[in-house]
Amino acid sequence: MHHPRQLSAAVLIAASSLGAAAHADGMPASLAMPAQIERIEPAFWWVGMKSDKLQLLVHGPRIADAAPQIGDARGVRIESVSRVANPNYLFIDLRIAPDAAPGRVDIVFSHGDERFHAPFELRARAPGSAQRRGFDSSDVIMNLVPDRFANGNPANDNVPGYGDEARRGDDEAGRHGGDIQGIVDHLDYFRDLGVTMLWPTPLTENRQPKYSYHGYAATDTYRIDPRFGTNEDYRRMVAAAHDKGIGVIMDVVLNHIGSEHWWMHDMPAPDWIGFDGKFVQTQHARTTVSDPYASRADAKIYTDGWFSPNMPDMNQRNPFLAAYQIQNAIWWIEYAGLSGLRVDTWGYSDQAFLQEWTRRVMAEYPNMNIVGEEWTSQPTVLMHWLGGERGAKHRLATPLPSAMDFPLNGTLRKALASDTDDLHAGLMDLYEGLVNDVLYPEPSKLVLFEGNHDLPRLYSVLKEDAGLTKMALAYVMTMPRVPQIYYGTEVLMTSPTVRDDGKARQDFPGGWAGDKIDAFTGKGLSAPQKDMQAFVRTLLNWRKTQTTVHHGKLMHFVPEHGTYAWFRYDSDSTVMVVINKNKADTELDLTRFSEVLKTPAAARDVLEGKAVTLGTTITLPARSVKIFEVR
Amino acid sequence: MHHPRQLSAAVLIAASSLGAAAHADGMPASLAMPAQIERIEPAFWWVGMKSDKLQLLVHGPRIADAAPQIGDARGVRIESVSRVANPNYLFIDLRIAPDAAPGRVDIVFSHGDERFHAPFELRARAPGSAQRRGFDSSDVIMNLVPDRFANGNPANDNVPGYGDEARRGDDEAGRHGGDIQGIVDHLDYFRDLGVTMLWPTPLTENRQPKYSYHGYAATDTYRIDPRFGTNEDYRRMVAAAHDKGIGVIMDVVLNHIGSEHWWMHDMPAPDWIGFDGKFVQTQHARTTVSDPYASRADAKIYTDGWFSPNMPDMNQRNPFLAAYQIQNAIWWIEYAGLSGLRVDTWGYSDQAFLQEWTRRVMAEYPNMNIVGEEWTSQPTVLMHWLGGERGAKHRLATPLPSAMDFPLNGTLRKALASDTDDLHAGLMDLYEGLVNDVLYPEPSKLVLFEGNHDLPRLYSVLKEDAGLTKMALAYVMTMPRVPQIYYGTEVLMTSPTVRDDGKARQDFPGGWAGDKIDAFTGKGLSAPQKDMQAFVRTLLNWRKTQTTVHHGKLMHFVPEHGTYAWFRYDSDSTVMVVINKNKADTELDLTRFSEVLKTPAAARDVLEGKAVTLGTTITLPARSVKIFEVR
Repeated sequence: MHHPRQLSAAVLIAASSLGAAAHADGMPASLAMPAQIERIEPAFWWVGMKSDKLQLLVHGPRIADAAPQIGDARGVRIESVSRVANPNYLFIDLRIAPDAAPGRVDIVFSHGDERFHAPFELRARAPGSAQRRGFDSSDVIMNLVPDRFANGNPANDNVPGYGDEARRGDDEAGRHGGDIQGIVDHLDYFRDLGVTMLWPTPLTENRQPKYSYHGYAATDTYRIDPRFGTNEDYRRMVAAAHDKGIGVIMDVVLNHIGSEHWWMHDMPAPDWIGFDGKFVQTQHARTTVSDPYASRADAKIYTDGWFSPNMPDMNQRNPFLAAYQIQNAIWWIEYAGLSGLRVDTWGYSDQAFLQEWTRRVMAEYPNMNIVGEEWTSQPTVLMHWLGGERGAKHRLATPLPSAMDFPLNGTLRKALASDTDDLHAGLMDLYEGLVNDVLYPEPSKLVLFEGNHDLPRLYSVLKEDAGLTKMALAYVMTMPRVPQIYYGTEVLMTSPTVRDDGKARQDFPGGWAGDKIDAFTGKGLSAPQKDMQAFVRTLLNWRKTQTTVHHGKLMHFVPEHGTYAWFRYDSDSTVMVVINKNKADTELDLTRFSEVLKTPAAARDVLEGKAVTLGTTITLPARSVKIFEVR
Repeated sequence: MHHPRQLSAAVLIAASSLGAAAHADGMPASLAMPAQIERIEPAFWWVGMKSDKLQLLVHGPRIADAAPQIGDARGVRIESVSRVANPNYLFIDLRIAPDAAPGRVDIVFSHGDERFHAPFELRARAPGSAQRRGFDSSDVIMNLVPDRFANGNPANDNVPGYGDEARRGDDEAGRHGGDIQGIVDHLDYFRDLGVTMLWPTPLTENRQPKYSYHGYAATDTYRIDPRFGTNEDYRRMVAAAHDKGIGVIMDVVLNHIGSEHWWMHDMPAPDWIGFDGKFVQTQHARTTVSDPYASRADAKIYTDGWFSPNMPDMNQRNPFLAAYQIQNAIWWIEYAGLSGLRVDTWGYSDQAFLQEWTRRVMAEYPNMNIVGEEWTSQPTVLMHWLGGERGAKHRLATPLPSAMDFPLNGTLRKALASDTDDLHAGLMDLYEGLVNDVLYPEPSKLVLFEGNHDLPRLYSVLKEDAGLTKMALAYVMTMPRVPQIYYGTEVLMTSPTVRDDGKARQDFPGGWAGDKIDAFTGKGLSAPQKDMQAFVRTLLNWRKTQTTVHHGKLMHFVPEHGTYAWFRYDSDSTVMVVINKNKADTELDLTRFSEVLKTPAAARDVLEGKAVTLGTTITLPARSVKIFEVR
């Protein structure tokens, strides 16, 4: 029912003559709709949203021939009804009064003498929903690939009719069976590790014949893929995480869908997809939308071109599609109780749409957060989306609140991987890179990550050097940023050092029954793995309570002789972090830091968990990081 | 007399009792001063400057014991007299009335019963001096190292008492004998090549025991080094260049002096030099003055630390030094008739001073130009000095008008040297780098260079590939920038590909009597050298008349299949430039450029010098650049 591959010339049939069929999970059976209305999206909404408007997409054979009315108003009225090129679609604009009563809203469709009723429901909002707090610099986000994390429910590894059967041995393209239950089963692991936010890669339906495991080719954006679980499973996962102090960030893909999305089999309008539905390869030329010298043709190829033949590009200049995507995001936040959104391939969408989408979502949840993926090494490109501190003529009307800090991630990885043995040991670019913070309106809102599902794994890039890996993690956790880690870094998971998605998304040990190594219990982990896991646990749990690290000022000092020190400080406390890239113990003069550190100072060595006194010098062990809480 | 190494306990002697000694060249013999006044700087000034103030530095044994007066006012009065720690210095603040009469101003120093007269002169300004035009995007600058360009006067190769004897065989540190006369002798060469501005590296006195050839360790900033010529030779060179349509840009070093500067032997004040005259190595950490997180201590080491033990750092927070440097720059502009300044190691000087220096110089010459050397790969660092389009809170009160575009130079070199054989052939970073132009208030004021005296030579970096070299030159000449080339690029001069100053500053062939190869006449040049020289001549001379290239808009297109095309256009004309990095002829679809090019189009192939018709496609020869003037 959710995936009508062929629509015959349809005849409207009265609802009473049809058996009711349940729509996607999350919709009560009582709202089952008549067969000729295959979808109403969204199927339900809430009373008391900031915007009192809602546009319903109605899909069914020749539904455009029918006229909808609302019999029992309950505070909901139809403002307008729109028809598009394809008569199997109808768009209904509703206005919902602030005092509308939750409950079923009866939409009656008339066609000639026939009448039938369509299900739609108004719900009450959860208390405090509009004021929910989003992720911020007091959090630690973990990114994970659910299919590769843990298989909590082997019964849903394959679902009839969905194809792309699970084959765990295929690291490149195969589904491995990981799912929502696998995440739920291990919430204690995240909590104990010190994670406060989870960012799973997309869980919505990807009924694609290949590569469905990664989730970035949605075939239904209102539905969790049944191989991961149900909509209600997802909602329960978020609630269970909340109970353990963990929020959930949903991964949203606005730019494209999967080639098997149900729209592709019954296109609403010729302009629903970029280049009128014809495949044109995007050039990934991301500056075309901010470069004053770019040609309009190139910008069009960038935003309207397809990611791949399997990923048709959404054309959000179509206002019905734009409304659909705006509402879809709000729907998931409200329905599932999310703490924020991560938006894939941010800049590839239409710029005016991105502003409107951001405006609408943030208007509903002013304290929430949205982080966009803009995969660039250039801070100026990030600045474009974030608004920046430039003159008003370049400022976007609705800037994106946060972006993934790809420039700093790249600089960090390069600096630590560098074998340069000059005075600064390759650390100078890292030091100097922070000057770009002047371009960002609020640098501490950016998400700084050590790795993610698209990058070679940190430990491998750093030549399987645990010392360098600890430095990277300490850096990410103590900069004025929202820190984010990638699942498995804590147990030294590896990958090739050039991009190889499948191999950078391998199964988390212990996530499958019978795994010989179990990172959840520690069984079979090597000593270095255990050591890194303990390091991450110590670092993240310490960070939870460090308001100075969350919100304090930063001062850093020019790298010297392979060492680099920075401080977070406020009126209450000072935290010192120093890394030593040298392969030998190195003496560090602490008097150089007198602007922010008065010696001798009583301090706590955070990673060793012991009290120390900082005199005028300290000896830094080879390839190490030290964190001191100074009293 | 100019270099008093030891000052004995001095006794003031009446002027009449002493023979007059001529000061630096450029001062009339009639202004010879009494011996006990060793220097008055500046020795002359002009009536009708925008600022009516002038501060004279007077140096002589215990001169501070004397009281200066102006007997015959002539519109000049002493506003104040200042003494500093060293009694051998006196600073006199003059006020010069707008209607003051040019001529000698008699400054009388009194000490007890003794009186003596010191020479100072007011001159009339050249007509239009204040309104002189600086270099801009209609110019082509050539940077040259005079010692290594041409030896026009072998008689001045060595000067008694100056040491560091000429030794042409020593490529690293040796003086080779090139001089001002060598430049004068070859002005026709520059003119014919299409150069409109010359930037010689510094010509001021460098009486240093070693490395005096490069000129960046001044021992007297009011005096041309006698091994290059005299002050008057310099002035005549500028005038002769002007007669051929060529301006001269002076290379100014504010940050440091040579360790044998005369001040170093009789320091005016303890704070005249960074760190009170003690050697502390600068860390070259250039972001410390713009990074909001930098420590003040690091910023101090950056700005006050020395470049090397041979280059003491000027402390311009000393107001007398600041005034001296401001006046020194204005003096050379006015005296020699300069078209602009290039400022070495810009950001290493005190930031407040740099703003005041810029304000004062630009106030005198509002249409002139100043280009600062800020050797960074980060556009954000350039933006800091240029003011940028950020909010007012970060904007410098007096931004630098122009900077050397090191970020784009680095990106250009890397893109062309890249062997990547992806779709974009390494050109994508070059394409995307231009997005940073949004950070600069006026990108077309920046100086874009293919090379300079501090970089490995372009042709070598590009693997001695003449095709790639031509692409780089065409790029530099057709971007919205002030283009600058380095002497010898036009005859394919080479160097190591990592920095090696001496070897990147080799002698220009034909500059020395007896040279077997003579690039001025073409004698002995190889066919590829002749070809490149002709290419540069054609390109630069064509550019002279192209107002669209000087001031038109830019549109560029995403690189595809190893090709990259850009257009300069305005209401009058369109210029198309396209490079083909491929090692094979490549077909290019011209219809892709329809926003700015309507085909078929009548055009002129600039480099081939023939009329062509541009249809829907053209074939680009392997490794080539094409320039078309489209009618």
